[in-house]
Amino acid sequence: MAELLYEGKAKQVYKTDKEDEYIIHYKDDATAGNGVKHDQFEGKGVLNNTISSIIFDMLEEAGIKTHMIEKINDRDIKVKKVEIFPLEVIIRNMTAGSFCKRLGFPEGVVLDEPIFELCYKNDDYGDPLINSDHAIALKLATREELAYIRDTTLKINELLKEFFLKLNLKLVDFKIEFGKTENGEILLADEISPDSCRLWDVDTNQKYDKDVFRQDIGDLIQTYKAVLARMQNK
Amino acid sequence: MAELLYEGKAKQVYKTDKEDEYIIHYKDDATAGNGVKHDQFEGKGVLNNTISSIIFDMLEEAGIKTHMIEKINDRDIKVKKVEIFPLEVIIRNMTAGSFCKRLGFPEGVVLDEPIFELCYKNDDYGDPLINSDHAIALKLATREELAYIRDTTLKINELLKEFFLKLNLKLVDFKIEFGKTENGEILLADEISPDSCRLWDVDTNQKYDKDVFRQDIGDLIQTYKAVLARMQNK
Repeated sequence: MAELLYEGKAKQVYKTDKEDEYIIHYKDDATAGNGVKHDQFEGKGVLNNTISSIIFDMLEEAGIKTHMIEKINDRDIKVKKVEIFPLEVIIRNMTAGSFCKRLGFPEGVVLDEPIFELCYKNDDYGDPLINSDHAIALKLATREELAYIRDTTLKINELLKEFFLKLNLKLVDFKIEFGKTENGEILLADEISPDSCRLWDVDTNQKYDKDVFRQDIGDLIQTYKAVLARMQNK
Repeated sequence: MAELLYEGKAKQVYKTDKEDEYIIHYKDDATAGNGVKHDQFEGKGVLNNTISSIIFDMLEEAGIKTHMIEKINDRDIKVKKVEIFPLEVIIRNMTAGSFCKRLGFPEGVVLDEPIFELCYKNDDYGDPLINSDHAIALKLATREELAYIRDTTLKINELLKEFFLKLNLKLVDFKIEFGKTENGEILLADEISPDSCRLWDVDTNQKYDKDVFRQDIGDLIQTYKAVLARMQNK
């Protein structure tokens, strides 16, 4: 068995026999509220890997540089080795979640322009919101790296909005992560799935994302299956 | 008696018989932790008005546009009428306070570059940290107004750092507010005093600001008097 490098809430990262390649393994765990709520859903890892791999392939084709090398099997992908920036990079097209809770703002408001947000990946401090100056002071990234990350994230947002709209889903918000290769190239990493996006049906506003688990308002596996079905039938 | 327009924690704002002028009256109240800690200190209002007026005059002379018209008496200044942006505009030259608490970072670290920070002035939500995109989405200011506010704040920081260094005080951080006149001119408003700055003695790191009250580590009036004495003896 390959050496486990890192275990997160929903995934594991393994070394390979190649110095510059890792394997990411998707688990069946779902967590919310910084791990306070935790459960397992048989098949979740397979669904997220399938969904995320389709999306990463789409983004690669559209010119976004990602860590993706290839999907190996239902639960595993081979990726380029990167060091992950300890940043949650968030885009909001409509208001929801922490934005509304922190600022006393109503949910579901369509924003004139997307909001770009950074959080410091630090479980002990609840992944606090930061701004670019904080990220630089904490030496999480340089100003130039942050400018590239912002530009790339806004491009990804346009591609994802269009992708999901074809599935009759509104992209309310999403969280992505970036990593850096040894030669300094910045790549989109981690995953893009209903764990990391808020997706609302265009007609009914029904939620097709992890909020069904966070808010106990639906069956997570059936919901994620429905997203994948829309992707495969488009 | 003039009509009271607004009462804050430490000041009152009155109408005057001129449409475009207000009177600001300094009270003796001190609050901390969003008003949880509250006390009165005889003479605090006089000290803050005196200190802030000297600083605003210095900034005006250096080319910063402020609301200041003139100091009327010990507790009152005449200012241009502005609508205050609901933003706390913060600069950090060294780490302290909420930056350290939120991010688990040690106090007293000198930053390579100043950190510019915005908080949404909203007591119900604890004046939460926001970024520029949030401020725009909440319609607190336009992108152009925020760019002007950032540039001006960085200039003010350079002027204040130099001013306090001559008094053998390090400017650790400060909070300022801006307002807009009816014709759209953006002016530095509110006050600049030991209530709104962290000031540490260059040699001893002794605190010469409201932290003596927040942390119960000294006499507020004696501390503020010592700051004023350094300003008058420079």
